[in-house]
Amino acid sequence: MGTSLELKINAQRLNDTLQSTCTSWGALVAPSTGMCRLTLSQEDKEVRDWLVAECKSLGCEVKIDQIGNIFAIRQGAVKDAKPIAMGSHMDTQPAGGRYDGILGVQSALEVLRTLHENNITTHYPIALVNWTNEEGARFPGAMMASGVWSTHSSTSLESCWDLQDKEGIRMKQALEDIGYLGETKADYRENGLECHFELHIEQGPLLEREGKSVGIVTSVQGMKWFAVRVEGVEGHAGATQMPSRSDAIVTASRLITAVRDTALKTELGVATVGVIKSDTSSQATISAGFDFIIDVRCTTDDMVDQLVTAIFKAFDNIIAEENNETSYIIQRTWGMPQSIFHPWCIDACRATALKAVGEEQVMDMKSRAGHDTAWTSRACPSSMIFVPSKDGLSHNPNEYTSPEHCALGAQVLLDAVLYYDQKLRSGEYQSG
Amino acid sequence: MGTSLELKINAQRLNDTLQSTCTSWGALVAPSTGMCRLTLSQEDKEVRDWLVAECKSLGCEVKIDQIGNIFAIRQGAVKDAKPIAMGSHMDTQPAGGRYDGILGVQSALEVLRTLHENNITTHYPIALVNWTNEEGARFPGAMMASGVWSTHSSTSLESCWDLQDKEGIRMKQALEDIGYLGETKADYRENGLECHFELHIEQGPLLEREGKSVGIVTSVQGMKWFAVRVEGVEGHAGATQMPSRSDAIVTASRLITAVRDTALKTELGVATVGVIKSDTSSQATISAGFDFIIDVRCTTDDMVDQLVTAIFKAFDNIIAEENNETSYIIQRTWGMPQSIFHPWCIDACRATALKAVGEEQVMDMKSRAGHDTAWTSRACPSSMIFVPSKDGLSHNPNEYTSPEHCALGAQVLLDAVLYYDQKLRSGEYQSG
Repeated sequence: MGTSLELKINAQRLNDTLQSTCTSWGALVAPSTGMCRLTLSQEDKEVRDWLVAECKSLGCEVKIDQIGNIFAIRQGAVKDAKPIAMGSHMDTQPAGGRYDGILGVQSALEVLRTLHENNITTHYPIALVNWTNEEGARFPGAMMASGVWSTHSSTSLESCWDLQDKEGIRMKQALEDIGYLGETKADYRENGLECHFELHIEQGPLLEREGKSVGIVTSVQGMKWFAVRVEGVEGHAGATQMPSRSDAIVTASRLITAVRDTALKTELGVATVGVIKSDTSSQATISAGFDFIIDVRCTTDDMVDQLVTAIFKAFDNIIAEENNETSYIIQRTWGMPQSIFHPWCIDACRATALKAVGEEQVMDMKSRAGHDTAWTSRACPSSMIFVPSKDGLSHNPNEYTSPEHCALGAQVLLDAVLYYDQKLRSGEYQSG
Repeated sequence: MGTSLELKINAQRLNDTLQSTCTSWGALVAPSTGMCRLTLSQEDKEVRDWLVAECKSLGCEVKIDQIGNIFAIRQGAVKDAKPIAMGSHMDTQPAGGRYDGILGVQSALEVLRTLHENNITTHYPIALVNWTNEEGARFPGAMMASGVWSTHSSTSLESCWDLQDKEGIRMKQALEDIGYLGETKADYRENGLECHFELHIEQGPLLEREGKSVGIVTSVQGMKWFAVRVEGVEGHAGATQMPSRSDAIVTASRLITAVRDTALKTELGVATVGVIKSDTSSQATISAGFDFIIDVRCTTDDMVDQLVTAIFKAFDNIIAEENNETSYIIQRTWGMPQSIFHPWCIDACRATALKAVGEEQVMDMKSRAGHDTAWTSRACPSSMIFVPSKDGLSHNPNEYTSPEHCALGAQVLLDAVLYYDQKLRSGEYQSG
């Protein structure tokens, strides 16, 4: 076995594979380079089948768990050890890009290919993990399957299985339909990982703005979702005079504006309304009901709670200004506490990144987006590597990260895995 | 033939028929008394088939025109004359009531039944008309088929045929599917009416508030619809910081609020947003696009234009406040100019209403809602009779008009038709 830091990933192969698999499975209509690869869809099945075949061709053992997570494990010298994992996701938003999640899995595959073609025998096993339904775009609840595996999410395996998509298809059925309802327990205590690394695009503008190439992610902000329902009174759009109205759309519009204004003013974090629905779909009817979801994210859980409190206070003021003729109810639907990553993993990423591109190109940062690694960090030492997103865009067909930054991220991922493996071998890091 | 004003409609039969047909075709789940009888649906087909059979059993000739309007004509003494018509509609909003439109058609049937059982021979023919798609709830564009028949609407027969519902079914196909794509020209110049009366519920609170039983409608307010599209930039709900956002949902929310606020402040009329749609349906994505429709109605066309101008000025201010990071475009989709009803028809309704219930119970009024009669008034002398709506509610399952008020309206309708017929016979009114 050579010195690990001399191994080089194949940048051309990484980019070719990433682009060609995106073109084949889930591409939006050209010239858009956007993606619609909803979790457990036909496109997702086909790219999963391809991934499994690729990993097996590299000598990996492949396990599928009860929620469709794919674990492709390349054995090391120590038998029956838990693997050092590289995970991310291959599903996308309905109008997403080619890098969010996909880069992490494709880079993990490139690492496996590099180890394989160089006949490297690591001390510990090395795994690629593809987490199911990170986006939460088809079945509501982001980072769903890593959450189940970590056993720290409030949603159980069974409750996830029972979720329905817009067509009324339950998630368990969708898993069965594409052949990814596996038998491995979706529980880290039965199918554990030694540690978890995730390479991901930043999805924000900071690296680009600071002129850096690699972000060493030390934490993920906390987040909470709330479903809000506004209720008014139906009426005729022509005959009901303005002062007599109880219009759910108007009140909801004011509340949605208040969500944005409160987040902007308090500077506590971000708050977004991304899903809306009105009861009526007729122009001539004043709406009696309106549903929307608020997504709140802040660096700390305390800040999340402060921002949520400020938003609901603003809501109450608006309802009073509307003379209580409309009302609202709130349901807490989902959340993830703040995550602090593990110093061993952070050190592995930082040391190798510094060696690859030097201090000028590397910065520590927090993740503002949720990631599967936020859940794995509750089950094993974990951390993430970020590479720049052009213009900070993500969840957008124009999402872009250059081939050079993708390759750099994959190289740091490879190096961090080998660094961690050597630390385990030397006994400097202890197996969990 | 007896003296017309001594004829009495059968109040019990009217109410029984109205309630039982609503229960049979399109009722929402009990205990709601609401209706969902979308135009050209299976429920609409069945109630149409029933209506045609009833009219034929009374000796009427039935014609169906190219847009599904039903003309059931009871011959009078003058052969080949154009009929005195009583029209309204049997389609409803998705969550509408049992009276809007339905009362007018059921009362017209009750008039025909009363004439038939009393062996009355009128001078002119008397017609019942059921206008297609008054609500515009399935195929967009209210009062659609009376507008086509009047030839004064901006939408042609062919453009209506080409409209699609949410399932992608075109209107012409829907007409064929239920057997109501008739051969009679949908054009008043080829299938004319002598005049047109419509009994309708008020859909507003004025009669109830003033303690009146009958409204004599002298005009219908003008209205215009606009489709608005707001454009922003997609982004990640966690990673895109608040000041960097171009959020279409937030800007649209501000514009929708401004529509209400401008109408309230200017007191020029009413303005409503009843249909909304966001491009994205994922919580974790900032929306890049949002569509909504504005419905503006005022007493005069000038006031409509003033209110529209004020609304768009408010929009421009909001876009500037949002630093032009979002934008909007407007498309004029539909409109109906103000309608002034014909003095002969107004006199016929007023004279018979005063005779029926006395001056204390009758008031002149404007219609704030659009009606088929607004279009017929462009093709022949027309007017309307209103009866009270409980709490002013309409386009709402709780819409309610008492059996006594329904019967009173039907009686005034009968009397107005016979009054007009006698005026034509005496030569005081001239045939158009």
